[in-house]
Amino acid sequence: MENEHDASVGLECPIPRDDYDSIHLAHGGGGKLTNQLIRSRLLPIFKNETLSELHDGAVVSIDGLRLAFSTDSYVVHPLFFPGGDIGSLAVFGTTNDLAMCGATPLAISAAFIIEEGFSMRDLDRIAESMHHAALRAGVQLVTGDTKVVDRGKGDGIFINTSGIGVVKKGIDIRPKRAAVGDRIILSGPIGLHGIAIMAAREGLEFQASVRSDSADLSGLVEAMLDDCPDIHVLRDPTRGGVASALNEIAQDAGVGILIHEEEISVPDEVAGACELLGLDPLYVANEGKLIAFVPPDCAESVVSTMRRHPLGTSSAVIGEVTATPARTVLMRTQIRTTRVVDMLSGEQLPRIC
Amino acid sequence: MENEHDASVGLECPIPRDDYDSIHLAHGGGGKLTNQLIRSRLLPIFKNETLSELHDGAVVSIDGLRLAFSTDSYVVHPLFFPGGDIGSLAVFGTTNDLAMCGATPLAISAAFIIEEGFSMRDLDRIAESMHHAALRAGVQLVTGDTKVVDRGKGDGIFINTSGIGVVKKGIDIRPKRAAVGDRIILSGPIGLHGIAIMAAREGLEFQASVRSDSADLSGLVEAMLDDCPDIHVLRDPTRGGVASALNEIAQDAGVGILIHEEEISVPDEVAGACELLGLDPLYVANEGKLIAFVPPDCAESVVSTMRRHPLGTSSAVIGEVTATPARTVLMRTQIRTTRVVDMLSGEQLPRIC
Repeated sequence: MENEHDASVGLECPIPRDDYDSIHLAHGGGGKLTNQLIRSRLLPIFKNETLSELHDGAVVSIDGLRLAFSTDSYVVHPLFFPGGDIGSLAVFGTTNDLAMCGATPLAISAAFIIEEGFSMRDLDRIAESMHHAALRAGVQLVTGDTKVVDRGKGDGIFINTSGIGVVKKGIDIRPKRAAVGDRIILSGPIGLHGIAIMAAREGLEFQASVRSDSADLSGLVEAMLDDCPDIHVLRDPTRGGVASALNEIAQDAGVGILIHEEEISVPDEVAGACELLGLDPLYVANEGKLIAFVPPDCAESVVSTMRRHPLGTSSAVIGEVTATPARTVLMRTQIRTTRVVDMLSGEQLPRIC
Repeated sequence: MENEHDASVGLECPIPRDDYDSIHLAHGGGGKLTNQLIRSRLLPIFKNETLSELHDGAVVSIDGLRLAFSTDSYVVHPLFFPGGDIGSLAVFGTTNDLAMCGATPLAISAAFIIEEGFSMRDLDRIAESMHHAALRAGVQLVTGDTKVVDRGKGDGIFINTSGIGVVKKGIDIRPKRAAVGDRIILSGPIGLHGIAIMAAREGLEFQASVRSDSADLSGLVEAMLDDCPDIHVLRDPTRGGVASALNEIAQDAGVGILIHEEEISVPDEVAGACELLGLDPLYVANEGKLIAFVPPDCAESVVSTMRRHPLGTSSAVIGEVTATPARTVLMRTQIRTTRVVDMLSGEQLPRIC
């Protein structure tokens, strides 16, 4: 086994592996290390074309039907927070991943890993929340699994949801479709989920008013695709925030991205918390926002459509795709300078989702 | 929320809830408590028809295509054991669940929850194992997710796999289809996975020769369905063993089941270990065996077909479906007495898969 493995890496993996010999928290942070772990370690092992698209979900064709298929585990801490809980987050996170493939979510699964001693009352509360979230997102929770681990070998409850949805004819949404000239639209103010979690976790009094933006985006996406079926890329900027999402797309499509700081809405309470905690809101997680890459002639109309939807009332074009510098995200700041917006390099907020 | 919840329980839940106010290890053991947790607590909350089938996976129809969809999390301890590891187990466990719906597995997802400090070398080994298992089962691993939890909040690695597959026309396999007169076929000797795990975990020297039977059953199922498309029920007797699987089916279909002890093959090393440890092999987990309920006129031919497959060489009819006593499994023992084979009531082997 070891030999086979070494041989295949030597032959197939053009990206140097990282130097870590064990997993660090930052490997799960959605930034550079997560990226390296997936691109340079796991992808060369699992090598296949669909997985290599590194989309929020896979699109597989079965008898002419294009099916989106997505999975996510949720380890958020704390389990309950202003604006949501691990249950609703797990449902919306997966319906959103399906929506980001341009799919209409149909069915989801729920798999629980519960630590011995976990309160039945909390389990009920989480299950109720998942049920209501599924109703809201228009999906059926059709299959599940329950495992229990011994005390001290888990952390209350972890939930995996996977989902399937159908991609309509003519829709082709993938990071690689980002094209020079595309307008980049953001659906609203950023950083609310990350700051809400951090405030709940640390008991930060001053942030009592921040609520997670956790929501199902599939209705918003449906309206956008009705308006412009030729949308190129959709992405929900969760772990690692807007900065990481844009960097991943720039990398996958081999394009440059220029964004304008003044167009990106940062709520005052998020800006305040970030200043105090030394965080950049561009890297803070969102759970109810999306970024769309649309052909320039569609942009104005898509923004209008989005603004008419409750989850997109403050949508705006925040930037555009450029030819150079390839694989790089630049930001024109409010004081008219231009800076590189790199991928998150360390761990900012562990267990944010 | 609490009020809504209490109201809905009062109205919708005919089965009394269990008395536990927190999760016990036995809630994950695949026996009575798991059953109660799912049937009397979670199902009334998620109430929907597909979920209520309580099959190994759900079958959903999309544009005339019948798609099987299944999920399972794997928390097996230890991660590596004779005959397999958490990676291959996670792949085969899910392709088997799809096969038990009569589906041809097509694609699976892999979601990792990794504890900080986990060895990269072990991660590679597990990923390689999953890759090879997927090749063997003929499925593509198309989408994934990686989360990291802080040290002491997990246990090395937990893996969730979900899968999709297509159910051919004319195939209708569900627990509820078990019918009086059906012959019950078991594909081989029982207890190997459970005893291999227990031996590896406890370092039991005398069991060094027992290897897990973990394997992909989809090829065997395909051959069986080619032979007899009218197979009524398929089930892989994993957690809780043959006894729990049969009890679940008897309960869901409202039928009686009579099995014959002398027809059930228990390898000597499993029998020896069970005697020493005070276990009943009927309750010990299998990961490469299946139970089929087939119409009587198909039985002989299906057994012959199974015996020609490498994973079914010692297949045999072990019993039949009876009208009474409904919802009960009886066993005719080798000494010609008849005893009730109840559902596992406590926890036998935690974290077996």
